[in-house]
Amino acid sequence: MSASPATDELRERLGLIADVQAAAALLAWDQETYMPPGAIEARAAQLTTLARIAHEELVAERVGELLEAAASEAEGEPYESDAASLVRVAQRDRDRATRLPADLVARLARAASLGQQAWQKARQESNFAAFRPHLETLVELTLEKAETLGYEADVYDPLLDEFEPGMTTAQLRPLFAMLRERLVPIVQSLTEPGAGGGAGENGGSAGATSTSIGGAGAAAGPNAVAAAGPLRQRFDDRGQWEFGLEVMRDFGFDFARGRQDRSAHPFSTAFATTDVRLTTRIHEDFLPAGLFGSMHECGHGLYEQGVAPELERTPLAGGASLGVHESQSRLWEILVGRSRPFWRHYYPRLQARFPEQLGAVDREDFYRAINTVAPTLIRVEADEVTYNLHIMLRFELEIGLLEGGISVPELPAAWNAGMESYLGIVSGNDAEGVLQDIHWSMGAIGYFPTYTLGNVMSAQIFAGARRAIPDLDDRTAAGDFADLHAWLRDKVYRHGRKLTSPELLERLGCGPLSAEPWLEHIRAKYGELYGVELP
Amino acid sequence: MSASPATDELRERLGLIADVQAAAALLAWDQETYMPPGAIEARAAQLTTLARIAHEELVAERVGELLEAAASEAEGEPYESDAASLVRVAQRDRDRATRLPADLVARLARAASLGQQAWQKARQESNFAAFRPHLETLVELTLEKAETLGYEADVYDPLLDEFEPGMTTAQLRPLFAMLRERLVPIVQSLTEPGAGGGAGENGGSAGATSTSIGGAGAAAGPNAVAAAGPLRQRFDDRGQWEFGLEVMRDFGFDFARGRQDRSAHPFSTAFATTDVRLTTRIHEDFLPAGLFGSMHECGHGLYEQGVAPELERTPLAGGASLGVHESQSRLWEILVGRSRPFWRHYYPRLQARFPEQLGAVDREDFYRAINTVAPTLIRVEADEVTYNLHIMLRFELEIGLLEGGISVPELPAAWNAGMESYLGIVSGNDAEGVLQDIHWSMGAIGYFPTYTLGNVMSAQIFAGARRAIPDLDDRTAAGDFADLHAWLRDKVYRHGRKLTSPELLERLGCGPLSAEPWLEHIRAKYGELYGVELP
Repeated sequence: MSASPATDELRERLGLIADVQAAAALLAWDQETYMPPGAIEARAAQLTTLARIAHEELVAERVGELLEAAASEAEGEPYESDAASLVRVAQRDRDRATRLPADLVARLARAASLGQQAWQKARQESNFAAFRPHLETLVELTLEKAETLGYEADVYDPLLDEFEPGMTTAQLRPLFAMLRERLVPIVQSLTEPGAGGGAGENGGSAGATSTSIGGAGAAAGPNAVAAAGPLRQRFDDRGQWEFGLEVMRDFGFDFARGRQDRSAHPFSTAFATTDVRLTTRIHEDFLPAGLFGSMHECGHGLYEQGVAPELERTPLAGGASLGVHESQSRLWEILVGRSRPFWRHYYPRLQARFPEQLGAVDREDFYRAINTVAPTLIRVEADEVTYNLHIMLRFELEIGLLEGGISVPELPAAWNAGMESYLGIVSGNDAEGVLQDIHWSMGAIGYFPTYTLGNVMSAQIFAGARRAIPDLDDRTAAGDFADLHAWLRDKVYRHGRKLTSPELLERLGCGPLSAEPWLEHIRAKYGELYGVELP
Repeated sequence: MSASPATDELRERLGLIADVQAAAALLAWDQETYMPPGAIEARAAQLTTLARIAHEELVAERVGELLEAAASEAEGEPYESDAASLVRVAQRDRDRATRLPADLVARLARAASLGQQAWQKARQESNFAAFRPHLETLVELTLEKAETLGYEADVYDPLLDEFEPGMTTAQLRPLFAMLRERLVPIVQSLTEPGAGGGAGENGGSAGATSTSIGGAGAAAGPNAVAAAGPLRQRFDDRGQWEFGLEVMRDFGFDFARGRQDRSAHPFSTAFATTDVRLTTRIHEDFLPAGLFGSMHECGHGLYEQGVAPELERTPLAGGASLGVHESQSRLWEILVGRSRPFWRHYYPRLQARFPEQLGAVDREDFYRAINTVAPTLIRVEADEVTYNLHIMLRFELEIGLLEGGISVPELPAAWNAGMESYLGIVSGNDAEGVLQDIHWSMGAIGYFPTYTLGNVMSAQIFAGARRAIPDLDDRTAAGDFADLHAWLRDKVYRHGRKLTSPELLERLGCGPLSAEPWLEHIRAKYGELYGVELP
């Protein structure tokens, strides 16, 4: 007989939930990749049913009893042990699930479903008024949700907690304040007339769509900024696809336990550590979309593949938070993939695939082109420097909506004022402004900050990797990522959801959450690239 | 308030089960199409969980109560009404599910899982002895299952009933006896030296794998019979794929509610009437595999797409039985797709796609090549004339195994004796003999006869269509299938699972199950083609 019968039974029940969630994730993946268009209603019903089953299984009384008994069995086990972590994380998930009454969940789901439909139409027509009543309902329900979940300091806390467990609004406020203070002048320095730098080319943040808002995100395709450049030529689909696979393989993505497909909006998802799905989209007339999109999603995928196999079919499989997940996509996409050492190795390879397009473009010009800073209206097309200003704006607007400082009808004006103030540009219409993102229409308020957390943490974690691997740049320049991958697997990936992001950073020796390493990266990289002393 | 609250609640509960089954079907589809190889264990767990949930939901006490109450509510409704049919078919499904104890289901699932693994290896090594103990267990458990389910006349009845509701062994015996008596001499006439006909070419029955044993089946690829011929040239993948899509579109397959992908073994499946998935495989050196495989699966797909939309998310969605399903795949693949009128329209189109390969081959030679009769060792490569002899052999062996006339160790010898007697050929090894099919290793005993039922019914139903559409051949020769498709939709497809196959045949005015129309088709087609008077 087992020494921990409650833990065993608990694992069995949680395994069933994990299986149902995996099936739901496959339904969602298929919806974005292969599902015929006529199936949309049937698919919605299937997804609703599976979500309902997973919810009911989790809140079942027996699971509550088992959690208590398993907690006793795990007493004395280390905090990070499988047994103690399982109880802790499952308890957290269950608490959240039980606190939300089924009725509220259903009203939210319905409002989100209607909201998304209305948003799609409103965005097409660039008509905020058509979306407004839906957003009002969603904000109202989100407030009800926050109150139901409860909080001590900020109404935003329980919402943030859904995506970034352990993080609080009180930690975000100074972070964003500091970013605003430091970043706005940096952007001004880089984009004022006379600043050196890139070919007026938008490098694009192709893969900004994250694991959880899969295939959602805003308009595909590059914003029509700027003139021609080395990135805006015709790069045939197949060559791009194969180059992407080559890089992903070198990064360490295991194609026996994952694959890449196509979708309108890139995303990644996992049905098991042995079944990780990435998607990308390729624009034949704009190289960065597919190139960096693949690297970005690959970062998410390496994380999911790196979770310890013994956490399979438990709530401990998966990423610590959306922020940590995003830190990995950004680490591989940007800190590795947009670095000089990386292109020392890969540029000749890319040239060999596209001799006509790039044979006469030298490496440094290419490097500048993919790292051009230019304010854009659209978040998912932003460069790494301006990207966080887009997020900051959304964070402030969300806080305003929830705390009452901004009403929904005031939102478009507040949006434009923020864009003007942070980026110096204003959208001519709502489609490119307040309507550009899908998140609010899904009721996903509290989600946006995880993008900035991801950027910030990516630099903290990468700094840790640098300390551990002193010749990291040389290895990158040799196309050798084995040590970096191994270090990340050991320090981050294998823990799955055992640790929250603050716990993870602490254990990594990266100190508490801080934007300093990221700002340092920006200052160093772009000061040098643009030949200016950045503030 | 609803006039039929129990029916409403029943529909809701059955809808949930349908959703879970749809998710399971997607997991299975994905496993054969896109799943990375490393995911096999995780996928097995997911499939097991979903099957368990669907089973538990169906046998839930509340569903039993609702069925009783809904039966009262449906009293006086016509037999074919949605309400009466829902109760009748759901009751049938539930009776079956409740009669099988969970323990037996689990033992069968385990034996099937181990059996399939062992079979794969045994087939590779052509080593029946390695598979024998598994088959012994499976036969034993199948007997236990049959006894548990209960029967009046034949132990085979409750097994057959799983795949072909309403059909009995007593109906099959005379059918097969008659086929044996009439077909064996026909095959002899067609294949004896001096008979006219084809180019010694094996037309291949590429799509013989049916809806339910998806992607299973025996060895892919054509048997290496015969010499070169028009079908054994290099036909590039893309041209084949596109020609297949053209034909499927003309047949009436709606690509907004379905799609075609690739898999090692062709199959079809449906997650909704609006989401029907077909797969095919293409051999660049053998045209019929992809060509007729696509048409075959398309027939299955037309059936699923044609089910009345109001049956969605109920147990009435889907085909009446495996036999009726197969009748539709064979009707489109063979009675339409291998007919002279069909190729009057499509041969010039095929030639245009493959001018080098077929430009100099005249239509009649092509028609003969795709309709060549030649005994083969492998069922899935058999032509339409000899195909049913393969099934007959399996039916007789299954009966022998269950009734005790044949023991598992005697099976290979019995197999070879049957092949010799019916087809005049004997396999040199077990891989091409008794080990060729996956069915038994999955515990699917009682399944094989549905292939022959499909062939037989296809001719009965097609004869009905001919009576209703007098100029059917002319329309086929014009590539116009609208009336045939509409007639089948009205007479067969829209009813879903409301009617059993005997009920369906009766309502179609086709009389009871009879092999006469099929034999008449064979005699007329091949007598003419081979220039012989067939017995």
